[in-house]
Amino acid sequence: MKAYSFDKVELTSGYLSDKQELNRVRTIYAVYDRFYETGRIGAFDFDYVPGEGKNPPHVFWDSDVAKWMEGAAYIIKKHPTPELEAKIDALVEKIKAHQDENGYFNIHFTVVAPESRFTDRDKHELYCAGHLMEAAVAYDEATGKRDLLDCMEKYADHIARVFMEEGNAAFQTPGHEEIELALVRMYLHTGKRKYLDMAKFFIDTRGSSETSEPNVSYNQSHLPVREQTEAVGHSVRAMYLYTGMAYLAAQTGDEGLIKACKALWDDVTLKKMYVTGGIGSTYVGEAFTNPYDLPNEGAYTETCAAIGLVFFAHAMLALENDAKYADIIERVIYNGLLSGLSLDGTSFFYENPLEINLVEHFANERGRKRLPPTQRVECFSCSCCPPNINRFLPSIGKYLYAMDGDTLFINQFASSRLEDGEVVCKVTTDYPVSGNIRIEASGVGKIAVRIPEWCEKYEIDREYTIVNGYAVINNSGGAIKVTFDMTPRAVFANPRVIRDCSRLCVMRGPIVYCAEGVDNGENLHAYSVPCDFGYKEEFSAEFGLPTIEVNATRLIPFDSGLYSSRRPEKVAATLKMIPYNCFANRGKTDMIVWLHAE
Amino acid sequence: MKAYSFDKVELTSGYLSDKQELNRVRTIYAVYDRFYETGRIGAFDFDYVPGEGKNPPHVFWDSDVAKWMEGAAYIIKKHPTPELEAKIDALVEKIKAHQDENGYFNIHFTVVAPESRFTDRDKHELYCAGHLMEAAVAYDEATGKRDLLDCMEKYADHIARVFMEEGNAAFQTPGHEEIELALVRMYLHTGKRKYLDMAKFFIDTRGSSETSEPNVSYNQSHLPVREQTEAVGHSVRAMYLYTGMAYLAAQTGDEGLIKACKALWDDVTLKKMYVTGGIGSTYVGEAFTNPYDLPNEGAYTETCAAIGLVFFAHAMLALENDAKYADIIERVIYNGLLSGLSLDGTSFFYENPLEINLVEHFANERGRKRLPPTQRVECFSCSCCPPNINRFLPSIGKYLYAMDGDTLFINQFASSRLEDGEVVCKVTTDYPVSGNIRIEASGVGKIAVRIPEWCEKYEIDREYTIVNGYAVINNSGGAIKVTFDMTPRAVFANPRVIRDCSRLCVMRGPIVYCAEGVDNGENLHAYSVPCDFGYKEEFSAEFGLPTIEVNATRLIPFDSGLYSSRRPEKVAATLKMIPYNCFANRGKTDMIVWLHAE
Repeated sequence: MKAYSFDKVELTSGYLSDKQELNRVRTIYAVYDRFYETGRIGAFDFDYVPGEGKNPPHVFWDSDVAKWMEGAAYIIKKHPTPELEAKIDALVEKIKAHQDENGYFNIHFTVVAPESRFTDRDKHELYCAGHLMEAAVAYDEATGKRDLLDCMEKYADHIARVFMEEGNAAFQTPGHEEIELALVRMYLHTGKRKYLDMAKFFIDTRGSSETSEPNVSYNQSHLPVREQTEAVGHSVRAMYLYTGMAYLAAQTGDEGLIKACKALWDDVTLKKMYVTGGIGSTYVGEAFTNPYDLPNEGAYTETCAAIGLVFFAHAMLALENDAKYADIIERVIYNGLLSGLSLDGTSFFYENPLEINLVEHFANERGRKRLPPTQRVECFSCSCCPPNINRFLPSIGKYLYAMDGDTLFINQFASSRLEDGEVVCKVTTDYPVSGNIRIEASGVGKIAVRIPEWCEKYEIDREYTIVNGYAVINNSGGAIKVTFDMTPRAVFANPRVIRDCSRLCVMRGPIVYCAEGVDNGENLHAYSVPCDFGYKEEFSAEFGLPTIEVNATRLIPFDSGLYSSRRPEKVAATLKMIPYNCFANRGKTDMIVWLHAE
Repeated sequence: MKAYSFDKVELTSGYLSDKQELNRVRTIYAVYDRFYETGRIGAFDFDYVPGEGKNPPHVFWDSDVAKWMEGAAYIIKKHPTPELEAKIDALVEKIKAHQDENGYFNIHFTVVAPESRFTDRDKHELYCAGHLMEAAVAYDEATGKRDLLDCMEKYADHIARVFMEEGNAAFQTPGHEEIELALVRMYLHTGKRKYLDMAKFFIDTRGSSETSEPNVSYNQSHLPVREQTEAVGHSVRAMYLYTGMAYLAAQTGDEGLIKACKALWDDVTLKKMYVTGGIGSTYVGEAFTNPYDLPNEGAYTETCAAIGLVFFAHAMLALENDAKYADIIERVIYNGLLSGLSLDGTSFFYENPLEINLVEHFANERGRKRLPPTQRVECFSCSCCPPNINRFLPSIGKYLYAMDGDTLFINQFASSRLEDGEVVCKVTTDYPVSGNIRIEASGVGKIAVRIPEWCEKYEIDREYTIVNGYAVINNSGGAIKVTFDMTPRAVFANPRVIRDCSRLCVMRGPIVYCAEGVDNGENLHAYSVPCDFGYKEEFSAEFGLPTIEVNATRLIPFDSGLYSSRRPEKVAATLKMIPYNCFANRGKTDMIVWLHAE
């Protein structure tokens, strides 16, 4: 199927629309301000002088600002915003002014280490280039101003010379993938085949020559990509590579690539993904670990990796009309991705743990035992996640609709309007608050409505056939009503996941719930929840979603001492649960997703 | 009560006797050989020259060898062993030859950094001195050869001058406690009051002047010791300090010290101790953390800390006739202490985790995520634990019997014979294989038999009254038969211990059991055990104790995928359990103590 670009889709109201608005009116400015304060914006003046007290521009600063520019461009595309446009224009002017004659552009490798260009594979030059290319495409699409695109075409041509013609860089492929997918976007935007060839070069070369470096699996260079079947190494790198592979495959029809993408997809989503859609279990290399190794408290699950998984899923959907890809997009967005952003839109999680036990943070406070932070912050020294949210939210419309032949696919549910020539579709829903969806479309023969994999009961007021997870309906005009049962339910993990054995997770529709100490007292492990729990729910304006009170039992602590042959007493209790993505918005407190099952 | 020295007690057969024999015939030599190979023995030649390729003698090497000497001396005391005596004599000759005129003795601060004597509180000089003093007392007691004692008296006098008279060291109290308890032993052995005064000086000065250093709680210097009520910091340091305080209090009757000792005892044993008797939850500073923070997989629980807790308990028993102290001695010895030694007597755990999940050791293999080792090793770079076992096992007899007035206290149960003048007691038992104990004593008016806190059913074939955890029996001659019910039982943790909520531990008598992957397959978390489990037991010659097969259930893994709204199926299963202290003797494998409770 072919997805409709976000600019064809208007989110009119509801949960995702609210998040998009929050980004448009607040988060995009908050991130800019932090980037300004930390010197990332000023670095584009190229006036860093060692020893004068400023922080040296870091190797990945270009990419931080590029992602912000890309996000601002998406906003401008839908909501002309002179303030944002002026900020981007100012940055573009500086890029033009400081780009090398030969096309090279990188702040760090111009003002800090100009002698070291393209000598260290791990220093993010091609990664920064990729993000600048994505920003350039987005800004040209948004405004028709092609200065940045001109710069990046010139840079791309330089990279082609250095890596493909002259081969005089000290490495063959980027240590941090990103440019591969960016080059496909450059190709699609400009129509210039050479960029697709460059993407193909970097993808084909990966894992064929640099396999003897230490930690080759860290950046997925351990095998030629077509032979890779297991997701390994740094999870963001992996997602950007796999996305690039799928993008390329969509253009070339390369069966080897498609087969590898499918195997990698299965490995990630069937063995290495948290219930929140978070991926990358360990802070050691921000990486994948063993299959089924999904520790809750130590979960790394970087926000960027969640965003990357959405990119990968979206790219796979273009290769195969299977609702499973859109299911994962939904799981990730509503849980492990949006948890990266505070409710007020100004602070961020880089890591998104599934459990917090403050009692165990004793050692952490001394700075040596590694547990994820318990509170969001406004900026990180490595601040890749905040601008990734900046660019993700305004483009969220692209995940809603897609077309194949005369069939309109509805992949995500939000009150929205799609318009593309004769094709018009209007969806009205407060999903995921309720599961009631009204669809009215014209200009399409069939409508394929994704039946979420979590949904066991649903009603559609038309005849339909289920194909690959979609209810396919002949579009005879008039409104179609679809209802998904949103009863909160217990979800269980495969017992191979040792940390979730004898536990359950509460979900309602696509939303994973958690319990916090601030609502339920200091020991969340004392609660057990029966599999067929009773509950009450209540809409929370604070969270934009219902909270759920679950009937549970609670262990009574011993008055004193540690061990006894008498089983601790249990009392009936209720456990207040909130959407996981809203955790840690009310101060430092304990949190748990996987509850002890009765 | 006053305990009988180990030399009055003959262990005649049984579990503890076997461990003592293992140390006598194998472990003592294994440790010596490793110390020889690593240069610790050779370091006493004082011939280290920087740059010649040898490892520089470490600041704590003196103490490693001193503890070994102390252990060897205890062996010699009961089993004259010329080979060991010759080894000690050779070391003593070197100590005599290289001790300074003024009495100072430390290898590192003579051959590596002679200009830095007594300048760095954290460099273990007084700790090493303390261990050498303990060795000196032990060797004089064992052989009557007082050369080492003479050296250490001279060193003690030097320390008194530097620290108490001239005050010209760069610190006032040791960064690692040990000398305090050693000085009390010096006093008790020599009768020289000045050593008691020195112990008092170091104890009284602690926490009164060095309170502004960073991490003062790490070495218990945050408060004057009489004001300390919470066990904090490095757990071995804490145990040695508290033992020294209790030793001193036993000599002086100091009520403030006794009160502090009792408060610290309660804090350790009621809030910060694993079911194995292990203490010190975190590798960060090898330290105590928050009350009830007892993570299983990451448990640090250093073997030396377990031994230190036995010392502290033994010292408390001299202050108060309460069986609770002997209960902890039993818990520690049979579980978290003996786990430090391999079944073949040649390798050691420094850390004694309560759970191993190899799937989570992925990152560990890359050397960055901190989890305890899964296999014992023969020597550590910081090899304090092996010689601590060397000295603990031959002196184990001292924990068995004590006297107060005309009452003989039987604190630990092992086939043994006590003889001290008119007082003779013979105990016959295969405890803890069975709970049958036969006691025959003469020369005592009453016999106080500890009723273990774990024991809910017992029989005594005489009249008795329970006083402070002891069954007090008038000794009218003839054999007394005591039987403790050894039925395996479920033990539960206080629900404040978050990691043990909804779990249970299987114990049989004083023995904590664990399940290993080698017996039960790769996912021990898939098992659940009912609280009133059925079982079969079988004596294992390999372990010297019964193994237990527990009736359990086991979750069946999903064929594929991660999450489902269908609860995993359970099947009936049996779980083979072995004594915890025997874990990791059959290769790398998973291990679990706290099982999921049905």
